[in-house]
Amino acid sequence: MTTHPSVPAGTLHDRGLRAFASDNYAGMHQEVLAALAAANEGHAVAYGEDPYTSRLAAIMRGHFGDQAETYPVFTGTGANVVALQAMTTRWQAVVCADGAHINADEGGAPETMAGLKLHTVATTDGKLTPQLVDQQAWGFGDEHRAQPAVVSITQSTELGTRYTQDEISALADHVHSLGMTLHLDGARISNAAAGLDLPFAAFTTDLGVDVVSFGGTKNGLMAAEAVVVLNPDAVTGVTYLRKTSMQLASKMRFVSAQLVALLEDDLWLRNARHSNAMAQRLAAAVRDIPGVQVTQPVEANAVFAILPTDVTERLQKRFRFYTWNPHTGEVRWMCAFDTTQADVDAFAAAVAEEMTG
Amino acid sequence: MTTHPSVPAGTLHDRGLRAFASDNYAGMHQEVLAALAAANEGHAVAYGEDPYTSRLAAIMRGHFGDQAETYPVFTGTGANVVALQAMTTRWQAVVCADGAHINADEGGAPETMAGLKLHTVATTDGKLTPQLVDQQAWGFGDEHRAQPAVVSITQSTELGTRYTQDEISALADHVHSLGMTLHLDGARISNAAAGLDLPFAAFTTDLGVDVVSFGGTKNGLMAAEAVVVLNPDAVTGVTYLRKTSMQLASKMRFVSAQLVALLEDDLWLRNARHSNAMAQRLAAAVRDIPGVQVTQPVEANAVFAILPTDVTERLQKRFRFYTWNPHTGEVRWMCAFDTTQADVDAFAAAVAEEMTG
Amino acid sequence: MTTHPSVPAGTLHDRGLRAFASDNYAGMHQEVLAALAAANEGHAVAYGEDPYTSRLAAIMRGHFGDQAETYPVFTGTGANVVALQAMTTRWQAVVCADGAHINADEGGAPETMAGLKLHTVATTDGKLTPQLVDQQAWGFGDEHRAQPAVVSITQSTELGTRYTQDEISALADHVHSLGMTLHLDGARISNAAAGLDLPFAAFTTDLGVDVVSFGGTKNGLMAAEAVVVLNPDAVTGVTYLRKTSMQLASKMRFVSAQLVALLEDDLWLRNARHSNAMAQRLAAAVRDIPGVQVTQPVEANAVFAILPTDVTERLQKRFRFYTWNPHTGEVRWMCAFDTTQADVDAFAAAVAEEMTG
Amino acid sequence: MTTHPSVPAGTLHDRGLRAFASDNYAGMHQEVLAALAAANEGHAVAYGEDPYTSRLAAIMRGHFGDQAETYPVFTGTGANVVALQAMTTRWQAVVCADGAHINADEGGAPETMAGLKLHTVATTDGKLTPQLVDQQAWGFGDEHRAQPAVVSITQSTELGTRYTQDEISALADHVHSLGMTLHLDGARISNAAAGLDLPFAAFTTDLGVDVVSFGGTKNGLMAAEAVVVLNPDAVTGVTYLRKTSMQLASKMRFVSAQLVALLEDDLWLRNARHSNAMAQRLAAAVRDIPGVQVTQPVEANAVFAILPTDVTERLQKRFRFYTWNPHTGEVRWMCAFDTTQADVDAFAAAVAEEMTG
Repeated sequence: MTTHPSVPAGTLHDRGLRAFASDNYAGMHQEVLAALAAANEGHAVAYGEDPYTSRLAAIMRGHFGDQAETYPVFTGTGANVVALQAMTTRWQAVVCADGAHINADEGGAPETMAGLKLHTVATTDGKLTPQLVDQQAWGFGDEHRAQPAVVSITQSTELGTRYTQDEISALADHVHSLGMTLHLDGARISNAAAGLDLPFAAFTTDLGVDVVSFGGTKNGLMAAEAVVVLNPDAVTGVTYLRKTSMQLASKMRFVSAQLVALLEDDLWLRNARHSNAMAQRLAAAVRDIPGVQVTQPVEANAVFAILPTDVTERLQKRFRFYTWNPHTGEVRWMCAFDTTQADVDAFAAAVAEEMTG
Repeated sequence: MTTHPSVPAGTLHDRGLRAFASDNYAGMHQEVLAALAAANEGHAVAYGEDPYTSRLAAIMRGHFGDQAETYPVFTGTGANVVALQAMTTRWQAVVCADGAHINADEGGAPETMAGLKLHTVATTDGKLTPQLVDQQAWGFGDEHRAQPAVVSITQSTELGTRYTQDEISALADHVHSLGMTLHLDGARISNAAAGLDLPFAAFTTDLGVDVVSFGGTKNGLMAAEAVVVLNPDAVTGVTYLRKTSMQLASKMRFVSAQLVALLEDDLWLRNARHSNAMAQRLAAAVRDIPGVQVTQPVEANAVFAILPTDVTERLQKRFRFYTWNPHTGEVRWMCAFDTTQADVDAFAAAVAEEMTG
Repeated sequence: MTTHPSVPAGTLHDRGLRAFASDNYAGMHQEVLAALAAANEGHAVAYGEDPYTSRLAAIMRGHFGDQAETYPVFTGTGANVVALQAMTTRWQAVVCADGAHINADEGGAPETMAGLKLHTVATTDGKLTPQLVDQQAWGFGDEHRAQPAVVSITQSTELGTRYTQDEISALADHVHSLGMTLHLDGARISNAAAGLDLPFAAFTTDLGVDVVSFGGTKNGLMAAEAVVVLNPDAVTGVTYLRKTSMQLASKMRFVSAQLVALLEDDLWLRNARHSNAMAQRLAAAVRDIPGVQVTQPVEANAVFAILPTDVTERLQKRFRFYTWNPHTGEVRWMCAFDTTQADVDAFAAAVAEEMTG
Repeated sequence: MTTHPSVPAGTLHDRGLRAFASDNYAGMHQEVLAALAAANEGHAVAYGEDPYTSRLAAIMRGHFGDQAETYPVFTGTGANVVALQAMTTRWQAVVCADGAHINADEGGAPETMAGLKLHTVATTDGKLTPQLVDQQAWGFGDEHRAQPAVVSITQSTELGTRYTQDEISALADHVHSLGMTLHLDGARISNAAAGLDLPFAAFTTDLGVDVVSFGGTKNGLMAAEAVVVLNPDAVTGVTYLRKTSMQLASKMRFVSAQLVALLEDDLWLRNARHSNAMAQRLAAAVRDIPGVQVTQPVEANAVFAILPTDVTERLQKRFRFYTWNPHTGEVRWMCAFDTTQADVDAFAAAVAEEMTG
C-alpha cells in the first residue's frame, strides 16, 4: 500500500472515504485521542476506581444534577440492557416504540440475555405519547401479563426526530402516575440537546426521566457510553448488572477519559451542532430535487427520504447508506461530527445526478 | 494537582504509581496508542467490515492456522461468554476448574446472562486433567443432568501455572473421545506462549483446542480481546451471539487495530516475556525472605505467596495487591508489561522490610 | 357448608356454578378420572418409561403420522416454551400474531425463561398469512436482528377463528421457503379439528406443520398437554428442554393416561364437537338481541361480542366471563365440554334481560 | 394383556411391580384419588381462585404459622426454581451442597431458565453447616462475584439424612447474620417431620427458615408441590414467577385438592411414617449381610449401601434401583408410601441371595 506522507504507519483504511450510512462510520475526535494519550502510562486502579471515572461522575453531576450516578460501559446496547435490567425485576416488562433500537436493532439482546419482555407500540415518527403508552401499559397485577414497569423512549429518535420538553414532561408524568419509570435511550442525546438548544438536565432530570443511556460513540468517541441514573430509587444493582452484562472495563480509565473529553468542555455540543447542521444542509439541498421526498422532520443528524429504488441502488454504489424500509424505498442518511460541507454538497449533487440519470 | 512538564493536559492520575494487583492496572503500550491514531480519521464501515478487522483475521490465521476465525470483542468475560454459548445448546454445560475465571470472577455472567451451567472441579494448581474432567463429564443422555459438552481450561491459569503441550494434548484427546469440545481461556495466552517458548498454534490448534478466548488487554492493550475459533465445526452463531452479548463494537476498527498492533509483529511476545521475567525476578527476590512461602510454580507473570496477615496489611498500604485466600493468607502479585526491574526490586525490598518490621 | 347427598366428602366447590369465562373453568371428564384410577396402584417407572406414555406415543403416531414424537407436559405455556426452544438457537426468534397466547398471555415466559424474541404482527382475526409473516420475516443474516426462525400460529385461534387447510398449507410453504419452521399452538386443536371435520394430520402433518403444542386441558383433561414433533429435523433436545422447563412429570403415567383417555377413542371429538355446538347455540341466541354485536366468526368454542359496558358489568355479576378489549367493550364467552344447552339458554336469556334492563 | 378381575379397563401397567428406585415410582394414595373425584364436576374459577386453593392456604397456615403463603405448583424442580427466583435478584446466587437436587438433578434448570448461579459446597452427608456455608458465603459487594443471597438446604437430604432442629437453627442464625435468607427444599419434608416426630413449623418457621419447597408427589400425591413462603419479606413476585416458570395450573383446584387431602388430616404423616419404617426394616435386614455396607444414617425413607458391582447388576435385573456412585459402587434404595413389609423382605432376601450367588 502506498500512502501519502500524512498517513501514519499502520493506517490501512482510505482516510478519504465518506459515507452517510451511520455516525459510527466516523472515527474519534482528535481531542478524544489526545485524552486517551493523557490517560495512558503508569498504573491506575482497575474497574473504575481511577481518577478519570471519578472526574466523569462529577462532570455528569454537573450536567444531570447532584443525584446523578454514572456507570461507563462500552456500547449502546450494553447501556440499554444494563439500565433496563436495573429498572426491572425478572417478571417486569418494557414499553417501547416498535422502531426503538432496543426492539429493532439489538439482535434480541434484551430478551435473549436479560429475559426482558418488550411491549411494543407502532409509531409514525418514532415518538411515544401517553396515549400510545396506554396501548401497552395495562394488566397490572395480572400474572398472565409481563408487568409493564418501564417506558423507554429514544432522544433523538431512531427516525431523527426529537421530543420537546413538553412531550417528555407529559410522558414522565403519565408513566409515574402508572407506577412505572422512564428510561431514555440517549444514543444521540447530544444531538437532541443541541437541536433543542438546552442543557441535558432540562429535558431529562428536570422533567422526571429516571435513567439515561448516555451515548458517546456516535458523537465522536471511540467506544464509550454510560448508564446515568438520575433517580437512584428507580434502579438496583447497576454495578453487578454491568459486570454480568460484560460491560465492565478493566482499564476503565480509558472509557471514562473519552467521556470526560466529550463532556468537560463543549466538545459534545460542538460535535452535535455540527452534525445537526450538516443534516439540515443535506435536507435543504435534496428537498427540492424532484422525486425526492424527505419523510421525517430533520431535528437531529439524520435525513430520511424516499427515492426511487433504482436511484438508491446507483447512489449506494457511490456512497454507503442504508435502505430503511424496502417496502417504501425510504432511506436514511446520517451525518457525523466529521461530515464536511463539501461531503454534503458532493452527496447532494450525486443525488441530483442520479435522479436525473 | 501539580504536574511536571511531561504530563499532558488531561492527565489526572499519578503516572508514578506502581502496583502488583493486576496486569490490568497498566495502561496501553505506546505502540497500541499509535495504532489507534493510525486507525483514526476518515470513515470506515462499522461493525467489522473494515480493513483492520480483515487484517486481524489474516494475522490470526498466521498464528492459529488457516481455519481460524476471529471475532474481536471488548472484554475477557465477553469473549468467554460468547465462546461458550457458541459451543453449547441451551441444555448443555461446561466443565471447568472451580477457580476458573468463568466460575469465580465473572459475577455469574455465564449463568445469569447465558444460562450456562458450570460443572466445577476442585484443583490444587488451577489445571484440569483427564481424571479431573471425569469427575464431571458423565450423565450423557440423562435429562436430569445438564449435559457436559465443553471443557474449559485457562492458559496460563488463574494461579500463574501453565499447561504443557502434553497436558493439553491429553485433555483434548480425552475431551474429544467423550464427544465434547475444548475451550481455552487465553486471557494470558501470550504469557503462556512466552513461557513455553512456543508459537500459539503449537499448544492450541495443533493439539486439538477448539476455541480460544484470546486476551489482549492484560498484555498491553486498552480493551481488546477476541474469540478465535480454531475448529469451525465446534461453534454456531458466533456473529449473532457477539451482538446479543453486547460485544459488537460499532467502531470495530479500533478494537481490531489494537490486536493488530499486538500481533502483527512481536509486541505480544516482548510484553509477555517482560512481565514473565519480572515475575521470575520477584519470585527470586522474595523466595528467600524468611516467612515468605511461594505457593505456586511461577510459570507466567504471577507470583502467589503466603505471608503473615499483618505483613500483608502493612504492605498493602504501600502497594496495591490482592489477598487471594483469606483463610491461608495467600496473596497474588501480578507483573505487567510495564513493570520495571526497579519496581520489582522496590517491592521485594518492601516485603523484606515488612517481614522484619 | 350443607351439601346434598350426591356431593362427596371433600367437595368444597358449588358444583352448580356455571361460567363462560374459560374452558378451563370446567373440571375433567369422568372418563379421564376413570383413567387416572386405572393408571393408579403399584409401581411404574418414573419420568416416562411407563406403558401409558408408550401407548400415548403410539396413539399420537396414529393421529399425526409415523414420525410423530410425543412429549407430555403439564401446561400449554410449558408446551409452547419447550417447543419453541427446541425449534430455535439462542439467537433466533419467533414470528407470531400480537394476540397469540405466547405473546399476550404467558406472562412473558418465552422471553423471561427461554430468552425468546417474539416478532409480532397485528391481525384482525388472530390469523397470520404469508403476507403478514413477511412483515417480520426479514433481516436474515443481519446480526442486529434476532433471526426469524419459527412462525407460530394458533389453531383454533385466540379469537375463536380457524385456519382452513389452504391457509395452513400456504403458510407452511411460505415459511419453509424462507428456511423457517412452523409451530402450531394447539391449545384448542380438537375444537379446530371438530370444526373442520378433519383428522388432526389433515391440517398439520399433511400440510407441513413441524411441531404442535397439543392441548388437552381445555378439552376435558385435568392437566395434560404434549409437545408433538411432526418433523424431527425441526427440533433438538426436547427431552432436555422439557426437564429444564420444569415440565417433566415424575409420575408421568398420570399425565399420559389423561391424554390416552382423550385420544384413544373419540373423547377428544365428542368433547370438542359439544363445546363448539354450544358456542354456535350461544351465538345464534345472542346475535339477534339488539345492541349485541358478534365480532368474530364462531368457528370453535368461543363467541366474541361487543356489548355496552354497563350491560357487561351487570352480566358479570351473574356469570363470570372476561372483557377482552376494554377500549371497544368486546367480551369473550367460552363454552366447555360440560356446558349444557340449559347453561347456554340461561346465559342468553340473561344477556337479553340485561340489554333491556 | 390378561388382567385379573380387579384390574380396571385402561390399566396398562403391571400392578404387581415393586421397585426401590424412587418414591416416585409409586402411584397416588387412594384418598388422593378420592379427593380428585370430589373436586371434579361443575365449574371453578381457574388459576387458583377456587375453594380448594383457599382451603389449602388455611391448612398450610395451620402447619406453618399465620404468615405462611402457599403457591401450588406441579413439580419439585418447579417449586425450587420459583422459590429461588423469588428470593433473589438477577445478580444474586444460591449456596448449596454439591449433591443438592437443585445442583445435581434438575438438568441445569436453575441456571438455564432462571439464570441462577449456584455456589456449591462438598459434603459427606448432604448437610450444610455454618462452616460449610462460609466456604461460599463471601465476596459481598464485589461485582466480580455472583452475590451469595440464599442458602438452600434439603430436608430430608438427598442422602436420606436429616437436619436436627439445632442444626437448622444454627444455619438460620448464621445465614441471617450474613444478610442472606434460608430456603428449605422439602421434597421429602414429611419424611423428615415423621422422623423427627415434630410438626413442620418446629423445624422451619420456628427456627427461621424463610421459604419451603413443600413436596407432595413423593409422599403419595400424583403431581403436587407448593412454594410455601414463611417469611414474606424474603420474596417478591411469587405469583408472577410461578406463571413465567410454567407452574401455574389453570385447573388449579386439582393440584390444591391433592395437597388438601395430604395435609388436612394425617395422611402426610401416615405415609411418611410408613415409608420411613420400611427403610428402617430394609436397613436392618441388609445391614448384617456380609459384604453389604450401609453408608449413611437411615433417617428418612432411603437406604444407601455399597455392594459389589456384580451383585448390584444381578440385583437390578430383579428390582429397579439406582447406582448412586459408580466409582464406589454405592446404591440407593428408596421406600414409598405403598412399599409393603413383604416387598422389603423379598428385596432383602434377594440381596442376600445375590451376595452369596
